[in-house]
Amino acid sequence: MQHEQKSFYHDSGSRDRGNDIGIIGLGTMGGSLALNIAEKGFLVSIWDQNPDKAMSVYASAGAMRKSLHPVQTLSNFILSLRSPRTVLLMVPAGEPVDAVLRLLQPHLDVGDIVIDAGNSNFHDTNCRAETLDAIGLRYMGVGVSGGEAGARRGPAIMAGGDLDAWEHVKPIFEAIAARYGALPCAAHVGNDGAGHLVKAVHNGIEYADMQLIAEASGLLTRGLKLGYRASGAVFEDWNNGPLQSYLIEITSKIFKETDPETGKPLLDVILDCAEQKGTGRWTAIEALNLGVPAGVISAAVDFRFLSARPAERKDGQFVFSGSGAQLCAEDLSIADIEAALIAGKIISYTQGFQLIQEAADDNGWDIDLASVARIWRNGCIIRSAMLDEMASALAGAPGKSLMRSAYFAQQLSQTIPNLRKVARAGIQAGQPIPALMAALAYFDTARTSRCTANVIQAQRDYFGAHGFMRTDQPGTGFRGPWAHEKTRVLATA
Amino acid sequence: MQHEQKSFYHDSGSRDRGNDIGIIGLGTMGGSLALNIAEKGFLVSIWDQNPDKAMSVYASAGAMRKSLHPVQTLSNFILSLRSPRTVLLMVPAGEPVDAVLRLLQPHLDVGDIVIDAGNSNFHDTNCRAETLDAIGLRYMGVGVSGGEAGARRGPAIMAGGDLDAWEHVKPIFEAIAARYGALPCAAHVGNDGAGHLVKAVHNGIEYADMQLIAEASGLLTRGLKLGYRASGAVFEDWNNGPLQSYLIEITSKIFKETDPETGKPLLDVILDCAEQKGTGRWTAIEALNLGVPAGVISAAVDFRFLSARPAERKDGQFVFSGSGAQLCAEDLSIADIEAALIAGKIISYTQGFQLIQEAADDNGWDIDLASVARIWRNGCIIRSAMLDEMASALAGAPGKSLMRSAYFAQQLSQTIPNLRKVARAGIQAGQPIPALMAALAYFDTARTSRCTANVIQAQRDYFGAHGFMRTDQPGTGFRGPWAHEKTRVLATA
Repeated sequence: MQHEQKSFYHDSGSRDRGNDIGIIGLGTMGGSLALNIAEKGFLVSIWDQNPDKAMSVYASAGAMRKSLHPVQTLSNFILSLRSPRTVLLMVPAGEPVDAVLRLLQPHLDVGDIVIDAGNSNFHDTNCRAETLDAIGLRYMGVGVSGGEAGARRGPAIMAGGDLDAWEHVKPIFEAIAARYGALPCAAHVGNDGAGHLVKAVHNGIEYADMQLIAEASGLLTRGLKLGYRASGAVFEDWNNGPLQSYLIEITSKIFKETDPETGKPLLDVILDCAEQKGTGRWTAIEALNLGVPAGVISAAVDFRFLSARPAERKDGQFVFSGSGAQLCAEDLSIADIEAALIAGKIISYTQGFQLIQEAADDNGWDIDLASVARIWRNGCIIRSAMLDEMASALAGAPGKSLMRSAYFAQQLSQTIPNLRKVARAGIQAGQPIPALMAALAYFDTARTSRCTANVIQAQRDYFGAHGFMRTDQPGTGFRGPWAHEKTRVLATA
Repeated sequence: MQHEQKSFYHDSGSRDRGNDIGIIGLGTMGGSLALNIAEKGFLVSIWDQNPDKAMSVYASAGAMRKSLHPVQTLSNFILSLRSPRTVLLMVPAGEPVDAVLRLLQPHLDVGDIVIDAGNSNFHDTNCRAETLDAIGLRYMGVGVSGGEAGARRGPAIMAGGDLDAWEHVKPIFEAIAARYGALPCAAHVGNDGAGHLVKAVHNGIEYADMQLIAEASGLLTRGLKLGYRASGAVFEDWNNGPLQSYLIEITSKIFKETDPETGKPLLDVILDCAEQKGTGRWTAIEALNLGVPAGVISAAVDFRFLSARPAERKDGQFVFSGSGAQLCAEDLSIADIEAALIAGKIISYTQGFQLIQEAADDNGWDIDLASVARIWRNGCIIRSAMLDEMASALAGAPGKSLMRSAYFAQQLSQTIPNLRKVARAGIQAGQPIPALMAALAYFDTARTSRCTANVIQAQRDYFGAHGFMRTDQPGTGFRGPWAHEKTRVLATA
């Protein structure tokens, strides 16, 4: 075994001093990226704290072995790279990234490039970029989407950080990225943590897409009483229309799948407790931090929370089984549900793009939203036909809310009546459709030129002396007539 | 002027060495608290970095001047207090608190008590308590609600921190607090930042209460086409029923108020852009951090965000004016709206209390939810008749979700049909009712024993190899049949 390892590792190979890139962290994503990069003809050094992982990636590399160089020690790993060195980390977000950076730092020289390709929180990436920049390293935070298959066959790549560094590594990323037509789905979106912010919002939107589909599934199977196979056929049909997307496509397959163990429909044996790894939650938190309403995304996050509390839901069903809801679908058609999904999708993307824009403004990044939409057209989990239309709409009306761009305003105007119908039917039937309802609530608030927040401002002034602005005069800090009364009440006897 | 100041300050008074409490920060809230405490016969030293503020509080103190001691320097302020010294800060949250703590620290002795009575983020309070505890100071974070009038005449007090310190200062807080019957609305809720957490959730619930009222206002004035005075009368009427509360009461007054400048209804001249100071947002963020679904609160926060974007809303109305919504109220009655408000309120409090419970579990605090409800029965902004019923329900079924307690389960079962009716009417009319819709979406999800999150779990496994749990076997990490296919696809040719 010791002998095998010696021959397996490339620590002393003569050609190993000029490798193009080194990858640290060889889990599913890191290993797939390594194979992808090697396949495109780049020379790749690979290292993992667990040597078995490097061996296993190498073992699966087939013809790519000639480009793939497992290295046994970190110092040899560094020595194997040409200068300026490019090191890509694919390790879990948080402390593991800092741990690897601490290990790496003593080995690196000024001008070397370190790329965090994991799902780091962009605030952490901002901090790390600042720290490493101070010692002359060039740091990039790069969002990579597409899951295992994407990483292996062509992910979407959202790069953030040092622009010079990006120019240096661009050939690699453009070579391995998914293509939309001839264009690689990879771009530099902004400095510092911009790539990770865009990736987080991508994931937030992904949560919303998945949630909207789950709600549509409920409407099909419980509202319209379609079976799994029939529902799968509906999704397959939708995948040939405006909703064409990877998530709709895999949902159609999921609905048709049988559990090999029991012979039942697969969905019947899958527990209804959704898990999450954090990026959707970060997106919802960032929206709150920045003051951006992103209710569809947060409804999706909340639904996962609630789904993960099955005992509460069981007790809830026991307590509230007879609470007046009628399980009828009142003339709801499949086309209504499709249109409602389209409307919900446009609104959740509107929220997501606005969040990216405001995060960019807040961090001083010059993010081109159309470019982001272009990256997302292929390779990533949310890839869809609509993203190409979004890229056009955002390019045609920069700074404009997606849903108010000419094209999507028309799409929304056509589909909102169906969303209303679906929401009303869902409410009548007592079926949970939180994301669809959040989308509609946002739409109606966002198109109300005079809303009822004047009542809230009056209350705040009444109890907290916060003052308000007036509709008929400029300035702040106006007070209601109660201000005088109160002063009287507060005065001592 | 210099002469006046000399006689005004009490820095050298002989009786000043034994004052009961010192207050730093004499804005609206600090000044009102100082007067309240002095009125109850305690000897109060007051100091502010701006000497005018101390003078102005003293000037307004009337008969309480004998108990109120403005002090010119911080060292004399400290010397004026009996040991162990009790210093209460009422300064803006964030850096100002740390700045005052840095100023204070050199003057204090082991065992002295420092109370932050402002709206600090409870995470900051946790940190400060740990730091000050290490040098022998006793730190408390105390939430004080009720606005200016409450602080002056009787606030609700949610104390967190050192329990011995609480025993020491309890007589003061119990004396100044609001009363519910004979009981003071003041209690120690838990260690460290527990008081500030409870206060933040109070404010989050306050946002939800205000939002639900604003939505009801819209339904009355735009749905049922009631005028301001008639709407005010409706709120007045509701204030004699199950919704009896301070916020409903002041809303009835607000609706009847006339603008002295223009003679128009006051609400017509108040701009519809809601402001916020951060605690509602913190509550929504904390819910996300802890994985607690709190959609009614976050809908209220989001509505304020959107209200504060009037240009977007105007453009939205321009673009989407003819989007299929019909402005009719379809048989909606005032009683429906009242019942919908009751349901929305029960659900938002359910979310708030659950958030407190989970924050307590997460921080190792033993918070008695019934005690929290009791504190809130008077003095604070959310005071209401329903809170007494909530205190009973929570005491009767500890650990149980508020909405599933016997009493409120019955209330909800009775009012949910009205909430459905109102939501359907609001949707039909295109009127924004985001919090009511979020409440209903939560209710329906929380009573669905088998939800559609199995679709989400299948998708996550399909694209991310995340695995799932099964309904028919224990264990995690089961994979769908696609796992094999994918391994094949990923394998190299």
